[in-house]
This record gives sequence, C-alpha cells and structure tokens, in this order.
Amino acid sequence: MNVVLNSGADSATDSINEAQTPQALIDALFLANTTVIRNRVDESCRTFFEASDAIDEMGIEGIRSKFMQCDAPTQGTTAEAYLDMFDNEVLPHCSHLASPRYLGHMTSPLPQFLPEIGRLVQTLNQNVVKIETSRGLAFLERQVIGMLHREIFGADRQFYENHLQARSSALGIFTSGGTLANISALWTAMRRAGTTGTAENSSPHADKPVIIGSALMHYSFDKGAQLLGAELHKVPVNDHCQIDLDALREAIDKYQQAGRKIACLVAIAGTTDYGSIDALDKIGEIGRQINAHVHVDAAWGGGLILSESNKHLLDGIAQADTVTIDGHKQLMLPLGCGMLFFRDPALSQLTMHHAPYAVRATSFDQGRFTLEGSRPATALYLHAALHIIGKNGYDALFSESLARARYMAQAIEARPEFELMTAPVMNILTYRYIPEKYRNQHIDDAGNIEINRFNIALQKWQRQKGDSFVSRTFRAINQYDNQGLTLLRAVLLNPLTTFEDIDFLLNDQLQIAHLLENEMAGAPATH
Amino acid sequence: MNVVLNSGADSATDSINEAQTPQALIDALFLANTTVIRNRVDESCRTFFEASDAIDEMGIEGIRSKFMQCDAPTQGTTAEAYLDMFDNEVLPHCSHLASPRYLGHMTSPLPQFLPEIGRLVQTLNQNVVKIETSRGLAFLERQVIGMLHREIFGADRQFYENHLQARSSALGIFTSGGTLANISALWTAMRRAGTTGTAENSSPHADKPVIIGSALMHYSFDKGAQLLGAELHKVPVNDHCQIDLDALREAIDKYQQAGRKIACLVAIAGTTDYGSIDALDKIGEIGRQINAHVHVDAAWGGGLILSESNKHLLDGIAQADTVTIDGHKQLMLPLGCGMLFFRDPALSQLTMHHAPYAVRATSFDQGRFTLEGSRPATALYLHAALHIIGKNGYDALFSESLARARYMAQAIEARPEFELMTAPVMNILTYRYIPEKYRNQHIDDAGNIEINRFNIALQKWQRQKGDSFVSRTFRAINQYDNQGLTLLRAVLLNPLTTFEDIDFLLNDQLQIAHLLENEMAGAPATH
Repeated sequence: MNVVLNSGADSATDSINEAQTPQALIDALFLANTTVIRNRVDESCRTFFEASDAIDEMGIEGIRSKFMQCDAPTQGTTAEAYLDMFDNEVLPHCSHLASPRYLGHMTSPLPQFLPEIGRLVQTLNQNVVKIETSRGLAFLERQVIGMLHREIFGADRQFYENHLQARSSALGIFTSGGTLANISALWTAMRRAGTTGTAENSSPHADKPVIIGSALMHYSFDKGAQLLGAELHKVPVNDHCQIDLDALREAIDKYQQAGRKIACLVAIAGTTDYGSIDALDKIGEIGRQINAHVHVDAAWGGGLILSESNKHLLDGIAQADTVTIDGHKQLMLPLGCGMLFFRDPALSQLTMHHAPYAVRATSFDQGRFTLEGSRPATALYLHAALHIIGKNGYDALFSESLARARYMAQAIEARPEFELMTAPVMNILTYRYIPEKYRNQHIDDAGNIEINRFNIALQKWQRQKGDSFVSRTFRAINQYDNQGLTLLRAVLLNPLTTFEDIDFLLNDQLQIAHLLENEMAGAPATH
Repeated sequence: MNVVLNSGADSATDSINEAQTPQALIDALFLANTTVIRNRVDESCRTFFEASDAIDEMGIEGIRSKFMQCDAPTQGTTAEAYLDMFDNEVLPHCSHLASPRYLGHMTSPLPQFLPEIGRLVQTLNQNVVKIETSRGLAFLERQVIGMLHREIFGADRQFYENHLQARSSALGIFTSGGTLANISALWTAMRRAGTTGTAENSSPHADKPVIIGSALMHYSFDKGAQLLGAELHKVPVNDHCQIDLDALREAIDKYQQAGRKIACLVAIAGTTDYGSIDALDKIGEIGRQINAHVHVDAAWGGGLILSESNKHLLDGIAQADTVTIDGHKQLMLPLGCGMLFFRDPALSQLTMHHAPYAVRATSFDQGRFTLEGSRPATALYLHAALHIIGKNGYDALFSESLARARYMAQAIEARPEFELMTAPVMNILTYRYIPEKYRNQHIDDAGNIEINRFNIALQKWQRQKGDSFVSRTFRAINQYDNQGLTLLRAVLLNPLTTFEDIDFLLNDQLQIAHLLENEMAGAPATH
C-alpha cells in the first residue's frame, strides 16, 4: 500500500483517497516509503537555485491573479501530482533570496545541513512547551540558550551550574522571531516597573509607563507598546545613526520631572536600516542610574557575539537586562528561531504562567516562561549549527561578510553616480543614485524629492528586471537637515556573494539609471 | 570540496573549518552534496520510530544531568560526527509522541510528505512578512486562509472575489500557534472596544475592559489579558463542560451595571481538558445583543470544519467575529501553524502596523496584519495537506479518530476499576482509576484526595515505564461539588492507534494500579 508513491502514467488520477478504505488512506499517509516524493522535492530545490529572478511581464498583479480561487479541494491527489502543480504554479513565483546578487534582505541561503535537521525536527515532532512532550530536547534547549548567554554575559561557572537547568527560572527563551522576543522583553520590563512603579496619577495617559529608544527602533516596539499600553518615545540619532545620548538624557529628565515611570530603555545592536550600533555601555550605565530595565535589541547584530574578531562591536552588551537575538539573521538558521536572554534569570519569573493540563508550576516545563504555547524544537537548529560551524566558523563567515560590505562601500564611492549615505559598521550599507544634473552641487529640498522619486523607480525597475536586487528604505537624514530620503539598502549576508557580484549589481543599476534618465528626459518612466 | 560529507575513519577529526580557507568553509556549508547527511537523518528517524519509550533508571533528573555543559564549541565538526553525537546523547531522550500507544497530547505523527515539504520551505527560505521576500507564497498564504475562511463563514463568491487578495485587509493570518492567534484576537477585540468604548471611569481597575469566557479557557487567555491590561472573567461550566449560559448572562449584567466595557466573549470549540464545545450559536447571539466581539477558540476543534460528517459539531461558528485554528492539532501539520480568521476583513485593519524598511502601508505585504514580523511560509504545509489529503481524506481521518474515542470510552466503562469522567464529544476523554476500597459507593472529599494521589502516582509510573501513556489534568468537577480532581486524559488523535492499542493501554494501567495498590498497602509508592 504505497499509493502516495505511485509513479508513471496513472499517478495523477490515482489519488490517495479515491475508492479506498480509511485504513488504506492511513497507510498511504503515514507508513509509505517516501523516496519518490523526496526526489521530487530535490528537483524543485534544484530548479529554484537555477532559475532566474525576473518577474515576467505579468508583474506582481499577474502573479496575484493566479491565486484567486478559494475552494478547498474535496478529493485528495498524489504527492507527485501536487508537486507537479507546485513546480508549475508556485515555484516560478518565489523570490530568489538565495541568489548571490540578491542583496536586499536579512536572510541568506541556509547551510545545507539545516533543512535536513528540519526534517528531523518535524519527524520527531517534539513540543518544547512541556517536558512530557520533549524530554531531552527541553534540556538541550536550555543548554544552547546557556551557551549564548555565556557568550553575551560571561557569568562564572558557578552561575551556570546553578541556573542552566534550574527548575524555577530560565536564562532565556526561544520565540518565533525577534518581534516576539522584543515584545516579551517589554512585557518583562512592564511587569518589573509595575511591581516597583508609582502609577497613581489621575489622567489615564499619565499612567502609561514609558519606553525610550532611538528613532530607528524596529517596528516591533510600536506593536509591543500598543499591546502593553505603554508610551513609546523615540529619540533622534546622531550622524552615526546611533541614539543621541544627550537627547536621551533630556527625554529621561522630562519624563521624570513629570512623575512618569520609565519602564524600559532600548538600545539597538544593528539597526534594520543601517546596521548601526548604539552605545551599549553608556545606555547600560544610564539605565542603572535611573533604575530602568535596559533591553538590547540585537536581533541583527547579536550573532557577532560568537565571533572573536568582531565581538568588540558589541562591547557593553553584558550590561543589558535582556537581549534579543534572531537566529535567522547572522546565524543563518531557518526562520522561526528568535531568542530572548535574561541577564538575571529571576527576570524570567515575572511573566510566568502555568495550566493544569499543560505546563505545571513546579515542573521543568519550559512553556512556563514563554509568551507562546506549543513550540517546535527549533533549539536543535542552533545546537547543530554551533557544533558543525563552531565559533571559529562563524568568525570566518562574519569576517567575510564585513569584508564584502567594505568592498561594496568602496565600489560605491568609486562610482561618481552614487552617494554613499552610511558606511557599513556591520554588513549593511545605504546609498543612492544621484541623477547627473544634481551631481557635485548642493542639493535642495526639491532636488531631494526628485532624487527620491528617481531611486524608487530605479529600485522597482531593478526588482522587476530580476538580475540583481537591493531593498530601499525611507528615513530622515541628519546631513540633509532631517529631510526624508529614499535610500538603496544593501545587506551583505549571503556567503556566496563575490566581489564580482557586487560590481555586477552596481553596474546593473548604472545601466538602468541611464535608461531611466533618458526616459525621464522624454516621458515619465513606466517601470 | 565536500568535507561535510566525509565518511570513514577520518571523518570525526576532519571538521569543516580546521585548517581551511573561508572559501572552503563556505563551499562545504553551502554547496556540498548532502546525500550522506540525508541518509544519516533517515537512520535517526528510523531509530526514533523503533525505539521504546521507557525512561531508563536515571529518570528525568538523570537526563537533565546530561545537559549541564554550556561552552559553545570553538571548532566545528562534521555533520556526521554531529549526528553520531545526536544519536547517542539526544535521540534516546526524546518523547515517543508518534507511538500508537502514546495517547497523552495534542499532536500526532505527521503524514510523511510533510517533513519533505518542510525541507522545501526551509530551502526556499521565503519570508512571508513581505511581498519582496515571498512573492507568490504571500498570495498562496492568502489563498489557503481564504479556503478555510470559506469553510468557516461560507460567505458568497463575490465576497471572496473582493477580499481574498485585497490590498488593504486580510481574511486571516498565520501565527506561530494558537496562543498567538488567541492573543491577536484579544488585541483586535481591545482595539475595537477602544474605538467605541467609554473608558472614562476614575479608578484604574474600573478602566479595564473585560474578557469573559468559561473556566476552561486555555491559559493563552490569561497571558493575553495580562499583556493587554484586561480583566479576564471565568464563568463556571455545566455538566457537559460547556460554559453555563445563565452564569454568562449574569456576569454580563453585573459588568454592564458597573459601567464596564465588555471587550470580548470567548467561546471554546474543543476544550483542552475535555474536547467539549460551547454553545457557539447562543454565544454569538449574546455577543450581537451586547455589541461585544465574539472570539471562538477552535484551536483544537476547528479542523472538523473540513469534515462533512462531523462539522455539525461546530454549528454556529459562523457567527464569530474571529476564530483560532491550530494546524498542528487535528490538521496534523507541523508545530508552528496557528491561524486566526476574521469574519469581517475590516477587523484585520485594527492592529495594522508598517515600517519604511519592512512592510509598506500600501503594499500587499502580509506583515502589516500580523503581531509577528518575519515568518516562514508555513502556509505551504496547509496548502499541500489540503491538496494531498483533501476534505474527503480529513473526513475519513476525523471519523476514524472519533470512533477510536468512542471505543475507548466503552472499554473504560467495561472495566469496573475505572470511572469515565467525560464521554468524548470529540477525540478527547477523561477518566480515573478507582482503588478497590472506593468502588461502588459514595466517595467523600477525603476519598477523592486519596484517589487523586493514586492517579498521579499511576500516571507517573506509566510514563516512566514507557509502554503506553496518557496525560493528566486537574479540574473542579461539577458532579463532585466542584472538588478538584486529578483525571487521566486520553487524546485519540494518532491515526495509527488501533483498538488493540487502546486495550493494551488500559490493561497496562490496571497492571500498574494493581502493583501500586499492593505497594500502598505496604509502603508508600516510590514511582
């Protein structure tokens, strides 16, 4: 009984539940040999890596129009027939994030052992919410959390002997991503403020605790503040895109004078726009002075803690109360591996919950400490990567990545058509194309508005053309009197990207810009 | 260059980054052939299915002691050496959730095509937060959300033509699990109450909006209420473990008379303890009368909507404003596939967020509607399962599962040693063992306390013995004057479980109980 695996002429019609008994269906789904479907998935993966990233003439509206049907299938089909459909109807419309010339976003191709570990994670199907449903993997999760905790905070052996596998607290938690890690940190900070706070003001708004960070805070802080009923205050950044410490101190004074509770100071280690890193040591110091929770959002930059040559960029991180790291970014794990670390494990107790049918108060159940309930054993991805890549391996990968970013910055500066806006502190940089008539002169507000339009058109055309890709952002820029500028944004994470790929990408942009300038000289651009 | 794949005597020492150039490391991680590691993972999966579930003499403390080291490895190792270590040190300590005699929790083994789809999801590494990083898969996600929306709410063709792929709203979202789906629903309800509410009371407590549901609400509602600053009010249940509608109306009156805003009524379609289903139609009606948001937590029961023969159990669900379904439960998808559905897509706009570098306000970016940020394309699991299993296939699987539950209820009632506490409405039931001296008589409070202790010892002994397994819960029970009772809880989800397995499990318990009674007659139990 292995109808799932039928091949040959009749496979498309011989679906797994046509004219079968329930037992035959169960056998086909749960017990059949999976070689054929495995080989088909291999093929799909190969096709993905080999295909071009061009969006065909339909554009995004055309792709949209292909997914307009919403009847759930009544009759099942074979896995093979499904993959035929997938290859024809879905695969050609995926984003080619793995391409070495696709430098737009914060993911890289995964090391090839990881999707295999993924198959293991899903086959074991352990649920880390609870010891009964994960057993050893719950302790393994605490172990790898401890490994990174030690790299971040460097407490002594005795500390880890006491806390690594403690029953009553946690050194950190896995979350589905950086957003939930940040929100969990804010939740902790709010609980902490609540227990010591002085929320006795009359007006509802004046009751709200305050969270303060730079204007470059990730939008997860907007979500978290709204969820938790806090006020989020954004402080301007300096010319290096770090929080302006004087402005931070002023804001703190202002709120304190108004009798408001400052629940949390947020420092960023790797802003999403620029990769810039706030002065972690100074913010830690200020936090201690005013007795506020200090959270470091190191979703992007935190992975550098594993890199002997580069971890100095994170100096001061050990002063944080909580730290977010996103595994799917610098650590190149699959999406879904966010982490939050507690310097003091007692902080993990502030948001504890339990339930009689699920996680028990006095158990080892890890679910007591997480905002989420049932969770897959994503810890295994980190465990495998730490063992197979090792700190030395990550060190080499990070150093290569930073070298690529420096190369790209030089390559931009070597081309007079571009303006480098932010040099890379880490492996992100921003720049823009300056149309010929604006070069080598002061650019006024009207000029910048024109240049913004040009760069949006350039980025969209490049995206549609599909040979190379960067993303774009829109931010107030200090050196242009805080005017909002559209910037091209390159993320140099993909280890397969070569210097040649970078030159190709920039030259691709010059070529498109040339066409665009000609077109604009005549009629408005249509791309 | 494929050092990852080395086999033979030297593989353990020939790690991927020893004495190599960064380029060699990159080649080994990202470009090498993966056949060897794939075969090794196959072996690990096979071992897992064949191994026994017994916990060796060390017990849980012994397993814990094996994960006490927290130095992150400096030097990487081969994937093979890693899997050797995994097989020896981790795999033997996993929970055997896939065993047909492990009837304790709300997961089943996965249909075998799904971990292969998982490999595809991770290799494509699409990030569904944003069109640029997922393209077709973002539209596919909206498509499968629409398929279930239509099964739940059954709106007309025109509705889906307008809303399925609308730019400005969503019919539903994927979340990392049911907890986040429930919290997202409460967030929506609170925003909705905020826009029409009358929060003008003086005392901070009296400002809090109220969420009302039964005492059997999942603990995600406790988390959500704490996060959102709401008061969670729990109403008693009737003898069928459904919310007591008179008590619900009384609670509503009480809050309304006190001038409090009722932000949300929660109905449960499949309680975690019993699988019981609240009167969805009645609660929908009450919600409309008082203009409160109605949320149905169908994390456990929602999958039945695909089953022609069983969906009548969910009658009235279409009156809900929002519905949670957990894919990893009845739909047998991997962990990480929670869903929230909005009857009216305009509700999705109440919690919208965007950011200049991430999800754009006027884009198709799905991340605007989710509490989470970056997310994997888990929609593909549901898409594949709907096509390969089909509604007919799910119908057969559900019917088999409910038949197993009915069989087990009969088998319990046929054994005088057991008391069936709740007959299965769905595929969960609860019961307890009654020691001989308490049978066939009125059991007083002291007796129940004694019986609780006995059932805890029985469940722990069975868990440690490892031949079969049920979970346990602790709840106030109506028919015993609301005394808290420890109940054995069986979840009949695994399609590989046979009637023989059920008999085996019950006989296993009788045998353990016999030993336990003898032991207790002499000395206290040590298991």
